Amino acid sequence: MRRALALAEEAGKRGEVPVGCVIVREGKILGEGSNRREEGYAAGHAEIEAITMANRALGAWRLADAELYVTLEPCPMCAGAIVAARIPKIWFGAYDPKAGACVSVMDLFSYPLNHKPAVSGGHLEEECAGLLRRFFLSKRQTEKGDGHDGL
Amino acid sequence: MRRALALAEEAGKRGEVPVGCVIVREGKILGEGSNRREEGYAAGHAEIEAITMANRALGAWRLADAELYVTLEPCPMCAGAIVAARIPKIWFGAYDPKAGACVSVMDLFSYPLNHKPAVSGGHLEEECAGLLRRFFLSKRQTEKGDGHDGL
Repeated sequence: MRRALALAEEAGKRGEVPVGCVIVREGKILGEGSNRREEGYAAGHAEIEAITMANRALGAWRLADAELYVTLEPCPMCAGAIVAARIPKIWFGAYDPKAGACVSVMDLFSYPLNHKPAVSGGHLEEECAGLLRRFFLSKRQTEKGDGHDGL
Repeated sequence: MRRALALAEEAGKRGEVPVGCVIVREGKILGEGSNRREEGYAAGHAEIEAITMANRALGAWRLADAELYVTLEPCPMCAGAIVAARIPKIWFGAYDPKAGACVSVMDLFSYPLNHKPAVSGGHLEEECAGLLRRFFLSKRQTEKGDGHDGL
């Protein structure tokens, strides 16, 4: 999660909502990513980037035995991508009351889909949430408005 | 939808589950894509490919005023990507009782997310569903087993 936080911080410096993600298997990082939506990609969330990098590393779409660490609770797209990649375990940092699809807005994994990962939230929560809070605060101060309508 | 069907057929020839997607704005195709999961990408669904191509064409993540046509009901990942891209209108062909996130397994858009597209299903349904049926039938005959556990 420390590495995911570092990736999130980097994204914030690029003007992106600071979210970072790392995928680990057998103690090794298989893939990592950070938010690049402002570059112009709706699907450029940290988790999708990390999953695609891990897919490339393995040459396979299925990420069995992998664990995913992300600083913010996955949105529906990313929760769905975790199902699509069959990742068995997710750890997330901050809860997302606006778009979180593991607990906050919905529990996507409670539906009878063909994969159900184990989820654990609230890891390094204060640091992950604090990074987001500071980002939005500074954005509001700069733009005199929220300027952001969610992921 | 005819163009989406042609893309789906092409995907089937490459050994992919035959799903195709087209994004249109002001009568012009902005993006198109077909399934490329078997190439090794969990996030390589037709909708994600088409959204990313349309994002690239516009240089923006937001696809307002666009409409998305896809031969199969979007899964949770793709329904979430449609929310992330703020696409206002979706047309789909076949219903997906295993993974459909617009009607069949869940209605993702019924949750209080920050965007809610209009959805219309069942367009050229027989052709879209028939293409999938023939694909799985021929796969079962070749592999003497289903060999597929869903998108």
